[in-house]
Parts: sequence; structure tokens; C-alpha cells
Amino acid sequence: MKMYDKEAGLLELEEFMGGDDAVVRAARICYGRDDIRGKGKLIRHLIQNGHTSVFEHAVFRFKVICPIFTQRQLMRHRISSYTERSSRYTNSDSFYYPSTQRMDPDLLSHFSIAYNTAYVQYNNLLSKGAPRELARSVLPMGTMTEFKWTINVRSLMNFLELRLDEHAQYEIRQIARQAENYFADKMPITYREWKRRYDYERS
Amino acid sequence: MKMYDKEAGLLELEEFMGGDDAVVRAARICYGRDDIRGKGKLIRHLIQNGHTSVFEHAVFRFKVICPIFTQRQLMRHRISSYTERSSRYTNSDSFYYPSTQRMDPDLLSHFSIAYNTAYVQYNNLLSKGAPRELARSVLPMGTMTEFKWTINVRSLMNFLELRLDEHAQYEIRQIARQAENYFADKMPITYREWKRRYDYERS
Amino acid sequence: MKMYDKEAGLLELEEFMGGDDAVVRAARICYGRDDIRGKGKLIRHLIQNGHTSVFEHAVFRFKVICPIFTQRQLMRHRISSYTERSSRYTNSDSFYYPSTQRMDPDLLSHFSIAYNTAYVQYNNLLSKGAPRELARSVLPMGTMTEFKWTINVRSLMNFLELRLDEHAQYEIRQIARQAENYFADKMPITYREWKRRYDYERS
Amino acid sequence: MKMYDKEAGLLELEEFMGGDDAVVRAARICYGRDDIRGKGKLIRHLIQNGHTSVFEHAVFRFKVICPIFTQRQLMRHRISSYTERSSRYTNSDSFYYPSTQRMDPDLLSHFSIAYNTAYVQYNNLLSKGAPRELARSVLPMGTMTEFKWTINVRSLMNFLELRLDEHAQYEIRQIARQAENYFADKMPITYREWKRRYDYERS
Repeated sequence: MKMYDKEAGLLELEEFMGGDDAVVRAARICYGRDDIRGKGKLIRHLIQNGHTSVFEHAVFRFKVICPIFTQRQLMRHRISSYTERSSRYTNSDSFYYPSTQRMDPDLLSHFSIAYNTAYVQYNNLLSKGAPRELARSVLPMGTMTEFKWTINVRSLMNFLELRLDEHAQYEIRQIARQAENYFADKMPITYREWKRRYDYERS
Repeated sequence: MKMYDKEAGLLELEEFMGGDDAVVRAARICYGRDDIRGKGKLIRHLIQNGHTSVFEHAVFRFKVICPIFTQRQLMRHRISSYTERSSRYTNSDSFYYPSTQRMDPDLLSHFSIAYNTAYVQYNNLLSKGAPRELARSVLPMGTMTEFKWTINVRSLMNFLELRLDEHAQYEIRQIARQAENYFADKMPITYREWKRRYDYERS
Repeated sequence: MKMYDKEAGLLELEEFMGGDDAVVRAARICYGRDDIRGKGKLIRHLIQNGHTSVFEHAVFRFKVICPIFTQRQLMRHRISSYTERSSRYTNSDSFYYPSTQRMDPDLLSHFSIAYNTAYVQYNNLLSKGAPRELARSVLPMGTMTEFKWTINVRSLMNFLELRLDEHAQYEIRQIARQAENYFADKMPITYREWKRRYDYERS
Repeated sequence: MKMYDKEAGLLELEEFMGGDDAVVRAARICYGRDDIRGKGKLIRHLIQNGHTSVFEHAVFRFKVICPIFTQRQLMRHRISSYTERSSRYTNSDSFYYPSTQRMDPDLLSHFSIAYNTAYVQYNNLLSKGAPRELARSVLPMGTMTEFKWTINVRSLMNFLELRLDEHAQYEIRQIARQAENYFADKMPITYREWKRRYDYERS
């Protein structure tokens, strides 16, 4: 299991459907039932030849908690479904502080000054009758948010290719690594073949 | 349960995730946990106000067998996933004859003449070495095909609205009614509220 | 032309393709060339019967400038294309102050305190070597952003139905009204029929 | 210009928006205006690093005429828009005969026997009152169809990668080559950089 930094964001599996077997059965519909390749060989063939639409039949639903700046990156992946906590309907009171893995500790005071001021002014606005939808203007991009995220495995593999990359921001990489762990756990054959390809293309 | 005509096409449930409870939990993320509306009331609110993205967290995977002309209509619903038997890799030998519910029996001879000729010429082409991908040109649109179909419930509700309609072709309506049965069975609250709205808009 | 509040967000047309004529020509492919209905009648039929895929052949590209909280709502419309100014690569220095149409002027001081503190701490972080991608955590949701937005007319009509609504937040409604103006200008027949339907459903 | 076989399918450009300049302007929004890379260098960077969402701002609309079996392959590309001639509303009377580039001439008689029989039975069904939507069951997969196809350049590049490939069926490759010609003509810089990458990955 890949290690990750819990503070940067949490991703938990809620439900899953499909799996290696469902993918293999779907592929055999396509190629005919007398296709006698074993599961691993067939899945390797699908991945190496870009026949990835068959992986859309496996679907994960996650619960994610992360800073808004991470959620904005994640939301760029349009082929998936989101239901996010609305800051029009609910109050926000939790903010992201980078861990020492991520940042020099003496920079943290700048975070706390900005966050505390924002939070005080946010509450001032609410107490004077400003609507939540407008008061949230002063809340920082590091405000923690929460959402449900449903994504099929084709789209997930694409997400992982982009967001496990060392050029991806540290915080979203922590989310990606947790998703990768669940992927490896639930679809070991597909994961192995996807990973082999992923490593090869980066070598 | 709605009755349907089995000859016109078969749809079977393979797997399902989500359900009324998953939808309700996702909606409560959005509105905040102190939203105390009951499940039925909350789902009714979502449907009446077009907040249907939350239904994307529930997903069905079906196996479908139907004529190619029906599959072509079904495939127009782009927000779903398909893996179809390929007539490049497999032979075709099954064709659609409308039942007497659907057509005057004395018209059937025109179907059998056309189908038989097509099938004979298809096999002649194969035996003379024509590739399957080209020989299939002579196969009729009534050739039966098979595919896996994964669709989320938001997209399914849209499909049902269009394809249960009396202006939809009889054959695809039979597919839609079978999908409706599974929807009613697996998500009774969502189904009831969707149906109420559907009937109201048609009244 | 609908009036709108410029401060809440700007939307400008960059390029457009399609138009009433392109939609009509596409619809006549579908129905056959001997369909002799006039343009207005044909487009009314398409809209009243939900045959809206034909409007995907008309496409707008806009430039948008708005607060991040508005952009986050807009980005939920997944059937469209976005390229946004990245706060990983560029500095941010412009923030949203609601106009007096929108909010009691004596609340503005809470905005300026929060914004100024955030901006000072953001610059402190940058000057001490924090990466931009992390320093942006302290920037407010009212930070102005800029993006290109390409959307087809089917998806635009859906956007307008949701975001012109009085329950939509004021700021995104100002964006929607500007888009509505361009729509009315570039596709007068489609706009008229869409608007007739829209008003009817709300009456 | 790539040569292609006209009989296998025709693709004509109807309208285009975007272009190399629009892509470059959008990319400069993202990276900041002081990005001074030249157009070619910037576009090469986008393609080599998979930052292809920016190409969604360029859009082609084509008219296509091809056999139904080709259209079925093309329609699998879900990120694009189709309006097809409906065989529920219009008669069909044109069928695909492979050219001698494609097939041994003495196999053509099998096509003509099957096509003629299908066409005669189709007309018999219509003359006896069968609805068009059902009579079409006997029409062959080689029946010619016509549709409008709107596709953005990101999705088009993906289409070309799959359908110019030597494993793609000859008939859809002829469509792909015509689309490639228009792409090269309208977006020469993007085409050049895409082609360089495409050739490299196949070498």
C-alpha cells in the first residue's frame, strides 16, 4: 500500500461495482465466447491497445474530504459525478494547514493569520445578516470541503495517470494515492496491467 | 410489473450500486446533515427542482439482446457505457421477426425472404474468403446483437422519459419497460417520485 | 437586452458557429428534405418535443471574468470546455466587492479586512519562498478568475434554465443574462422558441 | 493531401471555429500572459504533456455520407454530436459496393443479390402498409446513411489516433483521412505537432 499524507485529504471507498470479472465478461461479449485467453492476458491486451471503454463497466463511489483548491482540480475531471457540500446551505469552519512534510513550519503563522481573519469576518458578515452565499466570498481556498465522487475505472485510470504524476500538486497526489490503493485492492489484475503500462511509459 | 414483449428485446440486470439510501446520503452532504426531511420528501424535492445530478451515484449494469435498429437508437444515449458483440470478430445468425402483437402475420414472408437471402450471401462471402467486417454489409438491420450497458440513474430517467413515450418505436419501448421494472424494484422511492412527475407532465 | 450588473462578472463572445440555419439544415437531414415546415415552426417543434440534440451543432466560445465562487458553480456544467487562468502559474490580485444592488454598503468593510489580510499573507508567503500553488490556500473565494468557455447551444439552454432562475445566486445570474443576450442576438429564432417554452413552464 | 477512396464514404467540412490562434490564446490564459513561448513551441508542449483540454475550443462540423456499419463505429465516439437521417422518416435506396481496391470483383454478385432482394422486400413491406420503422429491419448494414457531425479537436485527435490505425476497418479509415486533411488545412501548427507525436508513438 502506498503511504499518503492524511492531512492533505481523505478518500474513502463507499461502494464499488464491476471488478476484473465483469470487465473480462464484457470483453468476451465483444470478442466472442470462444476467446480463450486467460483473464490476465485479455486485460493486458485491452490496456496495451487502448480498448479501455470496457473498464467503464466498473464503478467506484468515494467520499472525499479535501481543501477547495484540490477539489477544484479534481472537478476538472468531467467524466465522473460529484455531490458537494454546499457553502450556500452549510457553514464552513475547517481549514487546511500543510504538514511539515509539505512546508517549512515557520510559514504556518501566515496561514493562521489569514485563516483566522477570514473566519472572523465570515462570522461577522453572517451575524449582520449577509447571506451565506455571499459571506463565503471571504473564506479561503484552503477551506475544507466534502463530496461524494462516483467514477468509472476508465476515467479513474486517466485521473491517476495525470494526478499521480510528480508534476501534480502534492495535495491531489495524496488523494490519487488513496484511490490507487482501492483500485489495486478491488481490481488486482486490471491494476497490475495498468501499472505495468504506466511504469513502462514513464521509463 | 409492466408487461412487455420478450421477442422484441431482452434486458437483464447484471449489477447495481447506489439505491435510495445512497442518493439520500449524498443529498444530505449537499444540504447539510441537519436537514431533517424524510427520504421521500427529500427525493421528491430533488426531482421536482431538477436537482438530478445526485442520482448519478446510483448505477445499473444490464445485459441487452435486441435488433441492431433498436441498438442504434439506444446508443444515441451517450451518457452511458456500451460493450457490444463485434460483427468483425463473431458470426451473426439470429434475426428479429416481429410478433403478431406488432405486425400482420402475412407480412412475415417478406422478412424471411430477405433474411434468408442475406444469410446465404453472408455465408457465401465468408466461404469465399471475404473478411467478416465486409461480409456483414449484407446482414439486415434486424440482426440480433448483444451488449453490456452501464448507465447511471440520472441518465436512465432521461432514457425512460424519451423511450417509454408512445412516440418511441415499439421495440425500444419493450427494452425501456424492462429497465423501468428494475428501476422500480431497486429504487422504489426514487421510482415513485420520478413516476409521479412523469405522469404529471403528461397529464 | 437584459440589463446586468457588470461588477458581478463579465462574459464576452469570442467566436460562434452554427446558428438558426445550421440547426434547420441538420433537422432537415433527420426528417428528410421534403419537410416543408418553415424555420420557426420546425425549431418550435424541436424544442417542444425535447429533440434538442440538434442544437449541439451551434457552439459559442466566451471569455468570462468572475469570482471563484461563481466559477465553481459554472464549472458544474460538465458538458462544456474550460481553460482557466492557473493560480499555480500566475499571481492573483483582484477580488470581488458586491455592488450596492447586492449588499448593504456597511458590510463592505468586512470584505476589505478579510481580502487585505489574505492578500498581505499571500505575498508574505510568496516572498518567503512558499510555492504559489500552496500560498493560494489563503486567497479568498472572492478572488477574480478568468477563463475561456466553449459550450454548445443545447448545453447553454440547460445552463440558462438553471442559472437565470431566481433561486440561482445573483452573481451567476449576471453571467447567465449576458450569455442570454448573445444567444438572442446570434440565434433569434431558436432563442424566441426556447424563451416561449421557458416562460410557459414557469407560468 | 492523403488520398482516399471516395466510394467508401464522403466527409465534407461545413463549418469550423477556433484554430491554432484560439488554442494559443486559451493556453496563455492558463499559463499567464508573460509566457513568451512561440506558438509552435507552446502547442508542442501541450501535446507532449497531454494538456489537450485546450484543443476543445476548436470545433469542426462535417457532413458525412457512409455505410451504416461505418456510422455505427463512428457513433461510438461519444464526445461529439450527431444528427442522422432517420430511416423512420425517410426511405433508403442507396447501398455500399466495395471498390476493387477493397475486394475481389467476383464477390460483388453476392452483394448485389443480397442488396436487391432486401430492397425489393423493403418496398413490398412498405406497399403493404408496414411502417417504415419496421420495414427497415430487412435493409442491409451496407445501406448508405448521412449525418452532421460536430466534434472538437481534442476528440477529433482521439478519433484519428484510433481510426487512422491500420487495424481500423478500411472504410472508416477513408473517413478519418478526409477529416485529417481538413485538420491539417485548418490548424497547420496543431496538426504538425499532433502528427509528430502520433508518428513517434508508432515508431
